Amino acid sequence: MAFLDDSYLLKGQTARSLFAAVKGLPVVDPHNHANTSEIAANANYPDLWRLFAGTDHYVWSVMRKCGVPEDYITGSASSKEKWLKLASVFPRVAGNPVYEWIHLDLRRGLGIDTVINAGSAEAIWERGNHVLAQESMRPLALLDTMNVEVMCSTDDPVDTLEDHALINAAAGRSLVRPTWRPDKAMNIFKPDWRDYLKKLQKRFDIEFKSIDDLSRALQASHDYFQDKGCRASDHAVVTPLSGVASAKKADKAFKKAFLDKESLDADEREAFMSYLMGEMAEMNAKSGWVTQIHIGAVRDVRDSIASSLGPDSGGDVSTDFIDVLPPLRSFLNRFDGRLKVVLYCLDPSHQPTLTTLSHIYDDNVKLGSAWWLLDTPVGMRRQLEYIGSVELLSNFAGMVSDSRKLLSYQSRFEVFRRVLCDTVAAMVDYGQMPHDVAETLVKNICYDNPKRFFGI
Amino acid sequence: MAFLDDSYLLKGQTARSLFAAVKGLPVVDPHNHANTSEIAANANYPDLWRLFAGTDHYVWSVMRKCGVPEDYITGSASSKEKWLKLASVFPRVAGNPVYEWIHLDLRRGLGIDTVINAGSAEAIWERGNHVLAQESMRPLALLDTMNVEVMCSTDDPVDTLEDHALINAAAGRSLVRPTWRPDKAMNIFKPDWRDYLKKLQKRFDIEFKSIDDLSRALQASHDYFQDKGCRASDHAVVTPLSGVASAKKADKAFKKAFLDKESLDADEREAFMSYLMGEMAEMNAKSGWVTQIHIGAVRDVRDSIASSLGPDSGGDVSTDFIDVLPPLRSFLNRFDGRLKVVLYCLDPSHQPTLTTLSHIYDDNVKLGSAWWLLDTPVGMRRQLEYIGSVELLSNFAGMVSDSRKLLSYQSRFEVFRRVLCDTVAAMVDYGQMPHDVAETLVKNICYDNPKRFFGI
Amino acid sequence: MAFLDDSYLLKGQTARSLFAAVKGLPVVDPHNHANTSEIAANANYPDLWRLFAGTDHYVWSVMRKCGVPEDYITGSASSKEKWLKLASVFPRVAGNPVYEWIHLDLRRGLGIDTVINAGSAEAIWERGNHVLAQESMRPLALLDTMNVEVMCSTDDPVDTLEDHALINAAAGRSLVRPTWRPDKAMNIFKPDWRDYLKKLQKRFDIEFKSIDDLSRALQASHDYFQDKGCRASDHAVVTPLSGVASAKKADKAFKKAFLDKESLDADEREAFMSYLMGEMAEMNAKSGWVTQIHIGAVRDVRDSIASSLGPDSGGDVSTDFIDVLPPLRSFLNRFDGRLKVVLYCLDPSHQPTLTTLSHIYDDNVKLGSAWWLLDTPVGMRRQLEYIGSVELLSNFAGMVSDSRKLLSYQSRFEVFRRVLCDTVAAMVDYGQMPHDVAETLVKNICYDNPKRFFGI
Repeated sequence: MAFLDDSYLLKGQTARSLFAAVKGLPVVDPHNHANTSEIAANANYPDLWRLFAGTDHYVWSVMRKCGVPEDYITGSASSKEKWLKLASVFPRVAGNPVYEWIHLDLRRGLGIDTVINAGSAEAIWERGNHVLAQESMRPLALLDTMNVEVMCSTDDPVDTLEDHALINAAAGRSLVRPTWRPDKAMNIFKPDWRDYLKKLQKRFDIEFKSIDDLSRALQASHDYFQDKGCRASDHAVVTPLSGVASAKKADKAFKKAFLDKESLDADEREAFMSYLMGEMAEMNAKSGWVTQIHIGAVRDVRDSIASSLGPDSGGDVSTDFIDVLPPLRSFLNRFDGRLKVVLYCLDPSHQPTLTTLSHIYDDNVKLGSAWWLLDTPVGMRRQLEYIGSVELLSNFAGMVSDSRKLLSYQSRFEVFRRVLCDTVAAMVDYGQMPHDVAETLVKNICYDNPKRFFGI
Repeated sequence: MAFLDDSYLLKGQTARSLFAAVKGLPVVDPHNHANTSEIAANANYPDLWRLFAGTDHYVWSVMRKCGVPEDYITGSASSKEKWLKLASVFPRVAGNPVYEWIHLDLRRGLGIDTVINAGSAEAIWERGNHVLAQESMRPLALLDTMNVEVMCSTDDPVDTLEDHALINAAAGRSLVRPTWRPDKAMNIFKPDWRDYLKKLQKRFDIEFKSIDDLSRALQASHDYFQDKGCRASDHAVVTPLSGVASAKKADKAFKKAFLDKESLDADEREAFMSYLMGEMAEMNAKSGWVTQIHIGAVRDVRDSIASSLGPDSGGDVSTDFIDVLPPLRSFLNRFDGRLKVVLYCLDPSHQPTLTTLSHIYDDNVKLGSAWWLLDTPVGMRRQLEYIGSVELLSNFAGMVSDSRKLLSYQSRFEVFRRVLCDTVAAMVDYGQMPHDVAETLVKNICYDNPKRFFGI
Repeated sequence: MAFLDDSYLLKGQTARSLFAAVKGLPVVDPHNHANTSEIAANANYPDLWRLFAGTDHYVWSVMRKCGVPEDYITGSASSKEKWLKLASVFPRVAGNPVYEWIHLDLRRGLGIDTVINAGSAEAIWERGNHVLAQESMRPLALLDTMNVEVMCSTDDPVDTLEDHALINAAAGRSLVRPTWRPDKAMNIFKPDWRDYLKKLQKRFDIEFKSIDDLSRALQASHDYFQDKGCRASDHAVVTPLSGVASAKKADKAFKKAFLDKESLDADEREAFMSYLMGEMAEMNAKSGWVTQIHIGAVRDVRDSIASSLGPDSGGDVSTDFIDVLPPLRSFLNRFDGRLKVVLYCLDPSHQPTLTTLSHIYDDNVKLGSAWWLLDTPVGMRRQLEYIGSVELLSNFAGMVSDSRKLLSYQSRFEVFRRVLCDTVAAMVDYGQMPHDVAETLVKNICYDNPKRFFGI
């Protein structure tokens, strides 16, 4: 088998035949970090570096692990210098999915089959930038080529979502839908929380005298998002929130922090956050939205990155030492039967707890795709094997790209579909299910299930 | 390879030849939840639903995950309606072992090779119920067909075990042995604990004025079980118990809870439970019984199931966040060299701790088969690979069905034997052990080892 | 495939061709427990038991799990009796790496291809002891045959390292380098800590009136080791140390324990150990040494072994229930960019946390090979797969034997290289990287990377 050929990630005939059945299905991407203003502007990308690495902390991290100085990563070096540096260390990235994603994007997206290394860097730079200048390489055309039917960006409750309207008008359909991500309102422990709440006050013209006022503003935002096509919220938490704190305690904590500008202890923070999570889940339940919960990322761990580059720059990690069960149990019991929930797992140590937990509820509760650093061929395979044997593959929420760069939506879905088909094919080849049952299963996971569950 | 054909779960020639060596060995099942009154009554099963799903919360859970209303699971719908509903969603269960178990039971047990789905449901119902009405489908005949040599049910210390006597008389041998499961006497935190203790008082005609009286009653029960052929106890715990609490503290806690009807704090509960565990392990040590410890199941997590259906109805989960080492270390050190112990693992996160712990003791301490939600082809394979490389496969306690339905003893053992042979064959094919050594190994694991260790 | 033949642990043609590229590379072993006086003495081994099992608690553990009485393990039985006992149970050890290591040592080292069992035991004993008496079987000749270029022993700060000088003079190069292991100075919670500190005082002629005096003595030892070719320290911890405690708190704790002979509470112990760890890491940073941290082994768990045989006799386990992130995060942030660190993982539950943590730092931070009970074909494979997909295989610190017996350096490296090649070959065969990239990768991991990183 040759590098990234037709059999990429597919071990045998069964795997290849299953992949043939899903290869052409449209992409439905319920969670990503699309730059909607970039898509709305619909301009050509300036160069390969900006396309492949300018916004992608996955690439930055592997460059750092290869000993590349920060100047050539997020610093002042030119795009070309950065690209040449990336290419020169790229053979040392082999095995990490970044190696496969960028090669796939180069092949599928730009039609360049060259293997990236120091020797080929200059030629790829020239040819790639030439290709990028074509009209067919503008964001909207690329989304079309990549067969993206619908994708959901990640947006803040104060956002006004004009770009979404522009894009959808240009596309003639609901191509890009917003997702409601209220983390900034929730994160009372962060230094910029009060400033953010002031923005919220202003955006919805409500003065926050109590936590109820904050809830009303969030409901106004929720209504606005619903009107703009939003069908899901997204929540990033280290430890999940129970959603069952008392309104009184939460209000007291809110007033202490927002009105009296005093700092809170752990219990007070928990009361505020847990209560607010419950309020927002109620909004979701009423609107039939999906509540997406991303669990276990510890943010801003490396001081030198956090202090110089800020969040989402490659300084986050996972930890196994989290007691996920008690809060999730309370949350799922409170909303049992009336709220759609997707649980995303980052640290594989939590997968069994999350999976056995999901397995006892009904089909409103689903497990999401292997998240972030687990979103690799081996991470996805182990996750699918475990989920498939304890819960149900047919209940799996499906793939999300979680990507910050447009060209990568396709490659991430391609990798997922290949891994899924290879994993299910192994079961067919072991005699664990008939081939036709397997084919229906992978088709549903790749298209019908996320369409129906998210209502998009 | 076709669905469930001869090569089911067996990848190559080595795997098939190893399986050929164990396929015909009698079933020795040291732990299950046999309905002994059902076996003793030896009546035909009324219908397919009652046979396959009536008592099996594994089936109920997957139906819920397919969105089936409770009415068609544990509710008032007829057996036929429930069966038709199960069959209609059954293709969506593919990948979960329930899919394979029920198809295996249908094939091996009833001789029906049809794949279950909405289209075949009616025909299978008719034919299956017809087959079930035959004399050869009665419990005792089925146990014979399934080649069950000996099996151990799970029984309460107050049980009088008449059914066991009836069955064994009919079988002409010790076909069904009891297992002593004193969890109800132990679980001082449960609301029905005092009522249960009153039953114990009455059963053994001892008034409980101190914890010593309770111990005496349990010893009387232990003696009774020994006389009826019992050779093992079974203990389900979230966190293991150290077995080293002081008699004085335990007695104080007992009196407070039982005599004074006051509620206990965590320390007092721990003192009582830990001490009692120590007492019971002493009884086991004296009688040469095996102490089976099932670790890490958190019970009754989903409120809506716990409140309407009660325990063992599909509302339990596992959690990785348990500190299993300190109590197990104390327990194993106290009984080092004089107590047979089997540790069953539910959450794969605990497998390494349990395995490295078992590996430092002698052959009285063994690891048990992948428990409950881990009892799947992928769960068993990963467990066997890890145990085999850190501890010894030859020291493995062997398979237990843990099943609540009679027909499933065979399919669970068949799946285990196939996975075991395939896993060991992979080692042979990798050149890690000679073929004849592997064959002896799998034969011992499947038959000789559990026979000898449990003394059954 | 036959037992231990050329294809041992190599599944296909790609794996075999990758292994052919690394098979002949010299062994570079940055961490082991070499008995340097044994090597310096360069005498023939008295018999097979002493060669294979006399100092190896891995062998002792598997014998105990086979029910062998302690007398035939660490007791008074003769070497021959012990060997015969080991051989008689050896077929039951199959699957555990001890089975493969000893067979490999017998084949590669002594040229005896016989499978070990009760029937072959006597003949192997005779022939093996005959071979062992040859001049080519003396330690220095064996190191030459095994193609060991350089290896690092584990030494105490008070050691004077004369044996290293003798060996290197005989070898004509820096064959054996010391490693600085200051655990005894660190472990203030141990009963023999004060006595050890007195040795340190005497060795460097410094009276310890404050923790600064202790630091000065350690610096003197550090300088001495540097002069003798040491390039790394090694630290065994259950929970990692943050290295950020205040000097004042640490000094107070030191004085209380050392001068006032009072016992410390957990906070005081932590302050002392954490501060000292920081001090030693500063020494390493200045000298460009590698700081090796072995995480998560809980020592002396089985009382009956700890009390009769003492440490390192097979009574240690791993536990998943450790919060490794907070202290490591502080430590790595303090020394970010200026300290070489290798993190060794014992319990696979910590691998994701350690891997995502390592992935955010630069190439000074590396993950070490699967440690101790994880150092098995399946343990290494799963570790390499996970590390390779989240961090970078090319940043992997490489294999260390960690072995206590000389003949085993080769077999442990052979097993590692085969597993590495088979794991990377699976990626090549899946189309995830080109063959030439893979070949460079495995060659660098096996030789160039550890040479360069450790500077040896």
